[in-house]
Amino acid sequence: MMDELERFRRYRERMNKRILSSKNLGIKRFFALDSQAYEKGILPVKTKELLGLVASTVLRCNDCITYHVIRCVQEDVSDEEFFEAFNVALVVGGSITIPHIRRAVDTIDQCRMKRAKGQSFEI
Amino acid sequence: MMDELERFRRYRERMNKRILSSKNLGIKRFFALDSQAYEKGILPVKTKELLGLVASTVLRCNDCITYHVIRCVQEDVSDEEFFEAFNVALVVGGSITIPHIRRAVDTIDQCRMKRAKGQSFEI
Amino acid sequence: MMDELERFRRYRERMNKRILSSKNLGIKRFFALDSQAYEKGILPVKTKELLGLVASTVLRCNDCITYHVIRCVQEDVSDEEFFEAFNVALVVGGSITIPHIRRAVDTIDQCRMKRAKGQSFEI
Amino acid sequence: MMDELERFRRYRERMNKRILSSKNLGIKRFFALDSQAYEKGILPVKTKELLGLVASTVLRCNDCITYHVIRCVQEDVSDEEFFEAFNVALVVGGSITIPHIRRAVDTIDQCRMKRAKGQSFEI
Amino acid sequence: MMDELERFRRYRERMNKRILSSKNLGIKRFFALDSQAYEKGILPVKTKELLGLVASTVLRCNDCITYHVIRCVQEDVSDEEFFEAFNVALVVGGSITIPHIRRAVDTIDQCRMKRAKGQSFEI
Amino acid sequence: MMDELERFRRYRERMNKRILSSKNLGIKRFFALDSQAYEKGILPVKTKELLGLVASTVLRCNDCITYHVIRCVQEDVSDEEFFEAFNVALVVGGSITIPHIRRAVDTIDQCRMKRAKGQSFEI
Repeated sequence: MMDELERFRRYRERMNKRILSSKNLGIKRFFALDSQAYEKGILPVKTKELLGLVASTVLRCNDCITYHVIRCVQEDVSDEEFFEAFNVALVVGGSITIPHIRRAVDTIDQCRMKRAKGQSFEI
Repeated sequence: MMDELERFRRYRERMNKRILSSKNLGIKRFFALDSQAYEKGILPVKTKELLGLVASTVLRCNDCITYHVIRCVQEDVSDEEFFEAFNVALVVGGSITIPHIRRAVDTIDQCRMKRAKGQSFEI
Repeated sequence: MMDELERFRRYRERMNKRILSSKNLGIKRFFALDSQAYEKGILPVKTKELLGLVASTVLRCNDCITYHVIRCVQEDVSDEEFFEAFNVALVVGGSITIPHIRRAVDTIDQCRMKRAKGQSFEI
Repeated sequence: MMDELERFRRYRERMNKRILSSKNLGIKRFFALDSQAYEKGILPVKTKELLGLVASTVLRCNDCITYHVIRCVQEDVSDEEFFEAFNVALVVGGSITIPHIRRAVDTIDQCRMKRAKGQSFEI
Repeated sequence: MMDELERFRRYRERMNKRILSSKNLGIKRFFALDSQAYEKGILPVKTKELLGLVASTVLRCNDCITYHVIRCVQEDVSDEEFFEAFNVALVVGGSITIPHIRRAVDTIDQCRMKRAKGQSFEI
Repeated sequence: MMDELERFRRYRERMNKRILSSKNLGIKRFFALDSQAYEKGILPVKTKELLGLVASTVLRCNDCITYHVIRCVQEDVSDEEFFEAFNVALVVGGSITIPHIRRAVDTIDQCRMKRAKGQSFEI
């Protein structure tokens, strides 16, 4: 049976492929810019992923949150760091972000569990 | 079989417990402030819950809407009152709120049905 | 010299007239629906104006907030009631609403001052 | 077995009926205005549906996107036109719109498949 | 004396220059993508500018609205077309967009007046 | 003559004092939580201020951006770091954030100029 993370990963991969198979050059370039924004610069990758996570949380986009949670776990963000970042998001964005923080914490736990079992959770 | 409301209630309870078990004091205090904002003051609880419901509707957060709908039903908000509040939300927030109003009305009906059957729907 | 409230009132009036002078029937009807949403129903006008104020605050629209603050002052909303409503907006919408709450409180004070001097502040 | 589009259509129809059966005149009138906004005027229906689609995408409302995608397919919007519209939405609204564009493209494909099989996908 | 449109044009130009003088390649590329999204494709420039205008209106960004209004006037969008586009934005985005539509219509009138006087209003 | 930053500082200070002089305990506690969220924890103050800045930018709140820009300059965030953070905000939030990034960069320059002249710009 496919779990939630795996279903997310496959749907995202399949639809990204479909979108990038279109002839629209603007969209392709945007997807490239999107990846590049999180690459190592003067700010470390981990900080950039936390920026992406907080931005996604205050804008309340579950799929974006899931993506950045996975990347943050890969970058070894600790629970304490996650919760400090969520606290900023919560204070800035208000209680309206709480349902998304619930989902985010659930995703963190699913990633850690998969890692503990030696299963892949990467994206 | 578990219905939608029950699934929502359990997930919310389980994840809130998980979040509050973290050591982050800021998040705990925010959750406390969140509850206190709807307690009886100079404005009655019912009015405050309607404020929370309309705020959640224009911000288009289904889980927040579900929460405030349940609380409003507990506070004996009538259908007529609900629809007047939704009308304000609809006019302020536009047609983009309609899918959320559909879900909200569905939730009202589920709550009333459970109450009619003597089942708990409280949160 | 024209104060801020007066400038707002005149600009709003002039541009509404300009917009309603267009032949677009849909826009005219929307403006009518907008007014009707706050008329006395099963919920009192005061409650509806508070709903409009909180909705405008979490959506962070200064002009909409100014409008509903003026209407609330006309409906004799007290400071204590205003702050309870802002507290709900603040908790739901987060610190991002604070600059708008500052402006709203400033507007309340300007309305009360005008009323104290026997000047019109109505809209 | 009922597919996603059919489930959406039925839920929308059932809940709209429920909402419009309420006595709230404001909501009924809003629903009428909503339909009229997309009727042929000086702008063609196809352009108006594209405006609705882009507005729904930047506001990130999946159900609204599904509705306008279906209508656009009915109006014979081509893939190339869809992707140019999504490109505008993506640039204006940012990567936060990507999960919604994935869903939108999936819906386009489902509509085209139904049409190819001679099945109804209309709303 | 400098008018509002001219002040907007200069500030925008000065700050864009300042931003693009930074070494950040991602931002430069984004600015390029932004311009390209509105270039002639299968959809005409006028339609794309209307898409940009409606997207900016429902997202309630005055500067973005000003930019697209100017571009639409350059593309000979008529008043009737403008109001049909605003009607879609108003219905989708709600009364919260009204203050922005007021500003937009004011900007249209300023552009037309400048054009009538043979003054440049281009961006 | 008072500059923009000084006007912002004074208005913010005066209105915060006015708001906190109300008897509403919830609002007072929220203001305390807001400050605490950016205090040193496992994440450094600088990272938290960047999180606040990016959150404010994607939510497009000029006053919040001004506040976090000032705090970031105090924490010695370099231009290169600022632009990498803005790039994340721009990619996540789209071109709709550009007018706010213009204002933010303007504010950075004003802070640096004041610091160079030995003038206070702190908040």
